Amino acid sequence: MDASEVAALNALLAGQRVAALATLHRGEPAVSMVPFAKLPDGTGFVVHVSRLATHTKDMLENPAVALLVTAPLAPGASALALPRAGIKGRARACPPESAGYGLARATYLAKLPDAQELFGFSDFSLFVIEPESVRYVAGFGRAMTITAERMRAALGAHP
Amino acid sequence: MDASEVAALNALLAGQRVAALATLHRGEPAVSMVPFAKLPDGTGFVVHVSRLATHTKDMLENPAVALLVTAPLAPGASALALPRAGIKGRARACPPESAGYGLARATYLAKLPDAQELFGFSDFSLFVIEPESVRYVAGFGRAMTITAERMRAALGAHP
Repeated sequence: MDASEVAALNALLAGQRVAALATLHRGEPAVSMVPFAKLPDGTGFVVHVSRLATHTKDMLENPAVALLVTAPLAPGASALALPRAGIKGRARACPPESAGYGLARATYLAKLPDAQELFGFSDFSLFVIEPESVRYVAGFGRAMTITAERMRAALGAHP
Repeated sequence: MDASEVAALNALLAGQRVAALATLHRGEPAVSMVPFAKLPDGTGFVVHVSRLATHTKDMLENPAVALLVTAPLAPGASALALPRAGIKGRARACPPESAGYGLARATYLAKLPDAQELFGFSDFSLFVIEPESVRYVAGFGRAMTITAERMRAALGAHP
């Protein structure tokens, strides 16, 4: 992964506000939409979810998750070559009393300011998805897999 | 689900060319991007995938999958209210000798004409994802779940 690919991956993750979140639901895969923000040092992706939602119950039962962030598809552009990043990771609750809460909340709200009101709802809470690997597809036939260590260096380089 | 919601769901599924596909990979959830097309009668979603890809191996091992189709997020629009449809279903291979192959291929290529070349690649093949239920979120707090029977009626109404 060269410097321009690292920059493009970071631009994709910074520019897109929503991801597809895959969770394990009663032994089967489920997928839902979540707004997300990347922690500045690349160690995690912050989501703010309701405990009334299925994906939150799923994450609490089994922390294995995957995120997919997809570039917007311009009219006339090929769907096959669409840049996207698939992140495999582990979700952990990030309650207000935890060490990383302040930064996670600030990072999330800086990207998604209209979520402010939801922080007053008692059923909503923060989770941090800690990445284990990222599969980045830069275009048709241009796929690369990055390990957690390499990724933290890459994702932390563009806070 | 009223007539305008049925129309909006069908417009979303017709207008978007890619979906997030969640599969079960070694007991954990995985998610990847797939171009897709809805069969005219609403009985399935067609994807064209390579057997070299992880999601294809996953579907062959365990047909339980989920698809997420998300509306594009306009700059300034709220990410929380983004319309999306989550489809839970079963994936089955659709080989050239099967009864539904001609329609599946024609439906897929009508929506994704630039995939034509891939039909000449020996590792690519069609799968049909047969929906069991659809969770449609029309906007913030406007979510509805539709059973397979109801959905076929709804999705088949707008071929």
